[in-house]
Amino acid sequence: VRAVDTTRANPRQRQLIAAWSEVRALAGVEMLLSWDQETMMPTGAAESRALQLAAVAGLRHERLTDDTLLATLAACEVDALDDPAAAALAREARRSVDRARKIPAELARSLAAARSRGVAAWQRARGANRFALFRDELAHLLELKRQEAAALDPVQPYDALLDEYEPGTTAANLEILFEPLERALSDLVRAVASSAGRVDSAALRGTFPVDRQRALGRRIAECVGFDFERGRLDASAHPFCMGIASSDVRFTWRAEEADFRPGLFGILHEVGHALYEQGLPVEWLGSPLAEAASLGMHESQSRLWENHVGRSVEFWRWLLPLFREQFPDFPCRRAEDVWPVLHVVEPSLVRVDADATTYNLHVAARFRLERALFDGSLEVDELPAAWAAEMRRLLGLEPTDDNHGVLQDIHWATGLFGYFPTYTIGNLAAAQLFASACSDVGGLGEHIAVGEFEPLLGWLRERIHRRGAWLSPAELVHEATGAPLGSAAFLSYVGEACRSLYG
Amino acid sequence: VRAVDTTRANPRQRQLIAAWSEVRALAGVEMLLSWDQETMMPTGAAESRALQLAAVAGLRHERLTDDTLLATLAACEVDALDDPAAAALAREARRSVDRARKIPAELARSLAAARSRGVAAWQRARGANRFALFRDELAHLLELKRQEAAALDPVQPYDALLDEYEPGTTAANLEILFEPLERALSDLVRAVASSAGRVDSAALRGTFPVDRQRALGRRIAECVGFDFERGRLDASAHPFCMGIASSDVRFTWRAEEADFRPGLFGILHEVGHALYEQGLPVEWLGSPLAEAASLGMHESQSRLWENHVGRSVEFWRWLLPLFREQFPDFPCRRAEDVWPVLHVVEPSLVRVDADATTYNLHVAARFRLERALFDGSLEVDELPAAWAAEMRRLLGLEPTDDNHGVLQDIHWATGLFGYFPTYTIGNLAAAQLFASACSDVGGLGEHIAVGEFEPLLGWLRERIHRRGAWLSPAELVHEATGAPLGSAAFLSYVGEACRSLYG
Repeated sequence: VRAVDTTRANPRQRQLIAAWSEVRALAGVEMLLSWDQETMMPTGAAESRALQLAAVAGLRHERLTDDTLLATLAACEVDALDDPAAAALAREARRSVDRARKIPAELARSLAAARSRGVAAWQRARGANRFALFRDELAHLLELKRQEAAALDPVQPYDALLDEYEPGTTAANLEILFEPLERALSDLVRAVASSAGRVDSAALRGTFPVDRQRALGRRIAECVGFDFERGRLDASAHPFCMGIASSDVRFTWRAEEADFRPGLFGILHEVGHALYEQGLPVEWLGSPLAEAASLGMHESQSRLWENHVGRSVEFWRWLLPLFREQFPDFPCRRAEDVWPVLHVVEPSLVRVDADATTYNLHVAARFRLERALFDGSLEVDELPAAWAAEMRRLLGLEPTDDNHGVLQDIHWATGLFGYFPTYTIGNLAAAQLFASACSDVGGLGEHIAVGEFEPLLGWLRERIHRRGAWLSPAELVHEATGAPLGSAAFLSYVGEACRSLYG
Repeated sequence: VRAVDTTRANPRQRQLIAAWSEVRALAGVEMLLSWDQETMMPTGAAESRALQLAAVAGLRHERLTDDTLLATLAACEVDALDDPAAAALAREARRSVDRARKIPAELARSLAAARSRGVAAWQRARGANRFALFRDELAHLLELKRQEAAALDPVQPYDALLDEYEPGTTAANLEILFEPLERALSDLVRAVASSAGRVDSAALRGTFPVDRQRALGRRIAECVGFDFERGRLDASAHPFCMGIASSDVRFTWRAEEADFRPGLFGILHEVGHALYEQGLPVEWLGSPLAEAASLGMHESQSRLWENHVGRSVEFWRWLLPLFREQFPDFPCRRAEDVWPVLHVVEPSLVRVDADATTYNLHVAARFRLERALFDGSLEVDELPAAWAAEMRRLLGLEPTDDNHGVLQDIHWATGLFGYFPTYTIGNLAAAQLFASACSDVGGLGEHIAVGEFEPLLGWLRERIHRRGAWLSPAELVHEATGAPLGSAAFLSYVGEACRSLYG
């Protein structure tokens, strides 16, 4: 991987990067407006904030679809024929420009309005626990998203949606990934259900004051390598991470006093995202290559730190003394005593509460339903029944009501179709990357057990973070691990935990 | 004063207001970027923040100078001939559009760069306490500002700069205001210097923990009428207030543990600005009329709450029990014991540390120097000597070094020429408005003494805040007080305090 050496860039490339820097700066401004809305904004300011966001988003879209930018890009594409750095630059710019130009301005405006009405309707429907109250807005939104997808790719419209979040991924690829994964996980869930094993939940009992959780969480973030001179940690109702700029990465968390898990694993999850953003290639700054490769790759980083590091015995060897410093009444004295409660397998109705093993079955269900919505084989009115059927098939459970079924996620209400599969891509990639890191880096577990995270972070920096969007996500995983993305490493990870706990 | 009834606005006016709303939203975004920079931003993010600010400011300028907007405005001006509401709308829009269009884009870019280099040079010069290190950048900035002023008004260039901050104000008007003020204040300062009176500073001794100051300051802000659902209070090195939107007004403060005054009067000063922003006419929202009338009018609101309310015996009758709750060791038991230390008169070298009486002499000096820089009678190399001469003439003091003289303010380094006079306009207007409020509202002092601030705030809302930019600042003061702006009320306020303290 060669850097885009901007000192050697020709005037057209420099012009492209200059225009791109402005577009990226505006994207950063939109992120700051959203971050502020979730963490700082006074409650009364929602309406003015919506205007501000719309104004900046509109201007960014204008810039991205500017004819001068297109002409500059076309000139760069000619230059790129015999230069891989220039080719990568032009390819990523072309991706964004084409997407932006293919969607008619009128459709973009209708979509923005439908998203905002969609969220409001979803919230009302959640309040009443009735899908019927969401049905019309969802149908309208779906119709507009079908138009958008058709404008992007008339032949494979759903693939065009997937491609926004996971460049190069198609429903056909996903099918190859999901089909054996579903089968193996369903078998595992059935085996667990019929086993006699059970986990003592003593480790979960206790009171964990939020300020102490915050102090511990901040310390963990520092120890794993987050640079607080180039970022922040704040509280918000729904944790997230935003790369406002590579020097301004902000992540948030949310804690519960009665349960340390949402806070601790929330910090580890979001700091995984944050480390990726802080590790993006500064030498390509302002170019479309200084971005994460995809949402799936982003999720691979958060899941790696949350699950493969944060739930491991080795990590708890290091953490437990610090943890007991903050929470002296914590009943577990050995890392081995904590480990079981962090690996319980239990089918449940709500994705965000699901354990690592059953989680991907929730994603699989959404993938199948989305795909059916876009190939015309499923209509909105059939969605609740189809949802229930998928839950029965994959998890052996049936939703008790709409809130625990088809109404549980906000994604579709905001127009995010083709987004769910990136969660599973992230889970699979996390396992595969962690397995490779373990074989590449000698004694990784021993390092983690004494709080040395640099060997792991260094491996991720070199193999993933510093490569930005140079490679496609598929190429990136292949280069980093020597194999295409698959479910073997993930199945081995959850399989071992299940066998250990449930025999 | 009639509202701009947007339901009755014709299509052209609605089009103007729609375009204006976008410009105002972008201005709000710039404010949020700056607010965040001063309060939240990680230290390493300065460079990316500068890019973000430049991107949004550039787009806002583009929008403001857009030919379509100009055509819409011209159409509105025709409609405005027989409609005062439409006339005020068109007048204020024209002011901003003309200013923006008259400054060549190349000059605007040079100025932005020169400002940023100017601040850096000023900081270096402050660090070395040597004006020579600031001289070249200041000279360059001044040259560009002279070009800008000439582009705006070739006949009276300095007036064009004043007009940005204080619409309608000219150097000739200011001369009429400053000349007698200077004379009267210099006499007062000499009288105090030769008097035998002295003030016991016992009230200032003590330790005032910052968290307790914060709790008290927040309570005061609430009591005087600040709506925390439409705003925030945070800490920053240099206190300020920003109307990001009328529903999102943020002010900041800074406290010292050894002295309660910067924190307390900082809160009262900034909350005065904040109450103005929260009181602007919501029914004109998105139009240029929903803005403060001028910087001087803004400063009148901050100074009114800081000095005329916050330093009064009546206010301390209400505050002292709350104050002693937080600071039980505070030695004063009666409001009358606190009052003297809040009214000490003592000539000093630094404007921001000056008392209410000598403060305007600092401003007068800067006004005379600026004016001379722009009429060509003073050159940058002569500035330190001219500064010393003004200090000698007005305050009987000579700067000990550059940092306590010509290098003390950041304003000129950021290109703010014509800005200083608004401080004195604000001080004079505060006194005149408060005197009128006292005669219009029965028993205002008694209300304040029991913590009832609504009668005063209600008067300010009606006479000042809700009028937005409908009237010029001169008309606004005249309508609110029945007289043109003058120094009589202010001189009576400081004169009485001096006589009471120094005989």
